[in-house]
Amino acid sequence: MYDPTLTIHATGAATKTVEEHKEPQDVTLHAAWYCPFTHRGWITLEEKGVPYEYREINIYHRDENYERFLKINPKGMVPALERNGKALGESLILCEYLEDAYPTEETRLLPADAFERAFARLWLDYISKQIVPAYFRLIQAQGEQNQTTAREEYYKILRTFADMVKGPYFLGEQFSLVDVAIAPFVVRDAVLKEKRGYERVDVSAKWKEYADKVAARPSVVKTSSEIKDYTHFYGPYLRDEADSEIAKSVRAGGGIP
Amino acid sequence: MYDPTLTIHATGAATKTVEEHKEPQDVTLHAAWYCPFTHRGWITLEEKGVPYEYREINIYHRDENYERFLKINPKGMVPALERNGKALGESLILCEYLEDAYPTEETRLLPADAFERAFARLWLDYISKQIVPAYFRLIQAQGEQNQTTAREEYYKILRTFADMVKGPYFLGEQFSLVDVAIAPFVVRDAVLKEKRGYERVDVSAKWKEYADKVAARPSVVKTSSEIKDYTHFYGPYLRDEADSEIAKSVRAGGGIP
Ligand SMILES: N[C@@H](CCC(=O)N[C@@H](CS)C(=O)NCC(=O)O)C(=O)O
Ligand SMILES: N[C@@H](CCC(=O)N[C@@H](CS)C(=O)NCC(=O)O)C(=O)O
Repeated sequence: MYDPTLTIHATGAATKTVEEHKEPQDVTLHAAWYCPFTHRGWITLEEKGVPYEYREINIYHRDENYERFLKINPKGMVPALERNGKALGESLILCEYLEDAYPTEETRLLPADAFERAFARLWLDYISKQIVPAYFRLIQAQGEQNQTTAREEYYKILRTFADMVKGPYFLGEQFSLVDVAIAPFVVRDAVLKEKRGYERVDVSAKWKEYADKVAARPSVVKTSSEIKDYTHFYGPYLRDEADSEIAKSVRAGGGIP
Repeated sequence: MYDPTLTIHATGAATKTVEEHKEPQDVTLHAAWYCPFTHRGWITLEEKGVPYEYREINIYHRDENYERFLKINPKGMVPALERNGKALGESLILCEYLEDAYPTEETRLLPADAFERAFARLWLDYISKQIVPAYFRLIQAQGEQNQTTAREEYYKILRTFADMVKGPYFLGEQFSLVDVAIAPFVVRDAVLKEKRGYERVDVSAKWKEYADKVAARPSVVKTSSEIKDYTHFYGPYLRDEADSEIAKSVRAGGGIP
């Protein structure tokens, strides 16, 4: 569904970050400014200080630019990370690739200890299987009653997560992939606040403290657009008219493709 | 749903392996002999040569044994890996933990190169999101027409995977986590053969060659029970009467919980 009124590039703080990453580099992030999964890869690149080119792909406008993108990533999904002519999709896999390919002690996004790594992976799995689908269920919920139910469900799911936060970040002092994975949904909770009666503090005091901290992280701030543009982008979702793969899967009661 | 006619322990070749792993060890695999996700952890333990105790949990019979298990793994799901009083669930995370915690060149289950690792992870993701749900859709399909459709779908999904096999194993000479993840579903295709008209060769010659190779891997053989017992276990699935989390999710059109 091509929405001609949709802004086709990042806005707000992200404008400058895009501007600074126009030059070709070994690593290219094929991106959509509004896409929460792209956002994860983008935050990771900023956290790790990897030189990268940011390239916006309008996946709703199937022009030559898009055709070229399809050759790199036949699935046609963003994000895709290109390096040496090879591309990788799937946001979390792409982030973990960056962690593997650019190992540095100071910017470690996964713990060194095997058990701690596995613990982080369990919560990444929780974000993928529980939090993200519940976010979309709430945004797509129609009618007050459904919205209340979906909001309560989302709160419950976030509370379980918040209870595990060591503070200030999920695993403690070190910002990790768990924080990266949830950050785009923290930023985009502004849409839920405006349209679905969501309040961070209504989840729990602990969630509010954590979410505020993640939202203020420089790598997150620098890669975020203006709230009004996210809200505009989510218009079809808020009316449950979106026909993206995610919207259809969530509508059918499933998870994230 | 407690089925009193269900065998409560491994049979066939797996009997001896269970017998050999009764003694307490640093690592305990909380297991169900029929469970394909347990099977992944079990194959990994055998591949890596990690000393382990195998402990059967009857998740359908909520006795004291099960109550004790719930204390270790509150989700009540198998597999769970216990070490130093801490437990990990989620088969693939548990396998990757073993890979991280017992790194040895000879038994490497993930490639050293970051891009190759990411490639392996993409196909692990494909197994979780495409192959496993399609396996359950076929086993739960009722009526000839639905079964034919589900079988064709499963073939198509397997063919895409088989096309990527480097041979003899998925990533080439080295047996990897990708092979571990799919192996239990290769073993259990015998149920589909008997009950759903499935034939390895009907997927493709390449699939048959790969599947035969994986099925013959010693770690897979040693941890497999008799086909008739798998078929018996899948009875409620074959009649679409199973009420496990997976069966319900697949019935609702979703993925694997
Ligand atoms: N599981 C994927 C999801 C990526 C995704 O869904 N991206 C959306 C944009 S936010 C997309 O490319 N959709 C294309 C479509 O629906 O056709 C990931 O984590 O990267
Ligand atoms: N995603 C999990 C799935 C594990 C799973 O579904 N295990 C089943 C047995 S095969 C189970 O414990 N089911 C308990 C239930 O359905 O209540 C994994 O990969 O480990």
